[in-house]
Amino acid sequence: MDPSRDEPRTPTVEEAARRHREARAFDPTAPLEPAVLDRILSIATLAPSPFDLQPWRFVVVRDEAARRRLMGCARNDPRAGRAPVVVVVLAYHHPDRTHLEPMLAARIASGACTPAQAAEIRGRAASALRDVSDRASWATRSAMPAAALLILAAESLGVGSAALEWFDDESVRRELGVPDDHSVACLIALGRATEVGPPPGRFGLEEVCRAEHFGGPWGA
Amino acid sequence: MDPSRDEPRTPTVEEAARRHREARAFDPTAPLEPAVLDRILSIATLAPSPFDLQPWRFVVVRDEAARRRLMGCARNDPRAGRAPVVVVVLAYHHPDRTHLEPMLAARIASGACTPAQAAEIRGRAASALRDVSDRASWATRSAMPAAALLILAAESLGVGSAALEWFDDESVRRELGVPDDHSVACLIALGRATEVGPPPGRFGLEEVCRAEHFGGPWGA
Repeated sequence: MDPSRDEPRTPTVEEAARRHREARAFDPTAPLEPAVLDRILSIATLAPSPFDLQPWRFVVVRDEAARRRLMGCARNDPRAGRAPVVVVVLAYHHPDRTHLEPMLAARIASGACTPAQAAEIRGRAASALRDVSDRASWATRSAMPAAALLILAAESLGVGSAALEWFDDESVRRELGVPDDHSVACLIALGRATEVGPPPGRFGLEEVCRAEHFGGPWGA
Repeated sequence: MDPSRDEPRTPTVEEAARRHREARAFDPTAPLEPAVLDRILSIATLAPSPFDLQPWRFVVVRDEAARRRLMGCARNDPRAGRAPVVVVVLAYHHPDRTHLEPMLAARIASGACTPAQAAEIRGRAASALRDVSDRASWATRSAMPAAALLILAAESLGVGSAALEWFDDESVRRELGVPDDHSVACLIALGRATEVGPPPGRFGLEEVCRAEHFGGPWGA
């Protein structure tokens, strides 16, 4: 039996993206069930990443006192204190040092690739990452798809979320003991939203897109 | 009548994320229909962004000669030449200068916020962005959710995709005439995949997550 038959159909990618509204306030008395939190985090780990290196780490802050301290790192945004969970998405600068071999070994073990294919991936990853001069920027850029998917996954499961955009990097690092080889990509508050932002309002494709070249008008 | 009734149900967020495999090769004879491309791009514009500033631009490269030149900027990755479309996602450094007022005006016009609320958002955005020392990194980080959603939207509509990770930033900028106040966030090839990568294989939450603090084991 398919267990998903028992649950209401969750929205499609487009529906979830269209429905999403940033939570403006959270209900501090409504906990986020551990199974739902685990599912959101698990979906986030499915995000694509360069060479499948998955350069993200999630520090999951649930303790109330810890969230209050985190609030102090985020310009006293009350959502950090009131949402039952704040996920701090970190970006790891050197996943090629520690993630690449376990990832390739798992793929070989599962039959997903041959040792020769693994060697080819290893070579390409090493060459590509040798060219990366700013590892912190590279890692942050590469970790953001997981943060985006985390927000979309929460939306699709009916959980409110807000990216707390305005935080002091150094204070967050100190508060959570983040080592120098990790950057803080973003802070995401999760819980039951009691108030959400307005419909975001999007620029149309004629504004956002260019054809063939930066100067090329779209749809011309 | 609901036109979506006529089309097969597209996958949920979790299904699309689980199904996604990077395209290893594309069918150069299979075009991407303009309506499908528009829908993928439109879904990508729904991504969340700081203060809804939407700091992304998509240069959509379809011309074959242009794609071949782009291939030369991406270590000769044949996918740039063979996929019918390559979307170059750019990150704009100063959306607060040019996007904020139109966005607020549209919200006021639609009744989504009052002039007083708009003034409050304007103030918070200005303060937050004043603190951003590295605009290129900020913009790239803020544009990546749109890139991630673009890939997920393509997956959900049955379109193959691959992020071309290894490109020369300067060559891409020169080729596409990208001005200095925009960064190249990523290159995404789109089309009919004739070969896809292996199941990606994910690190489990016990590896990825930390509880309360960087040093806190998950699930302990």
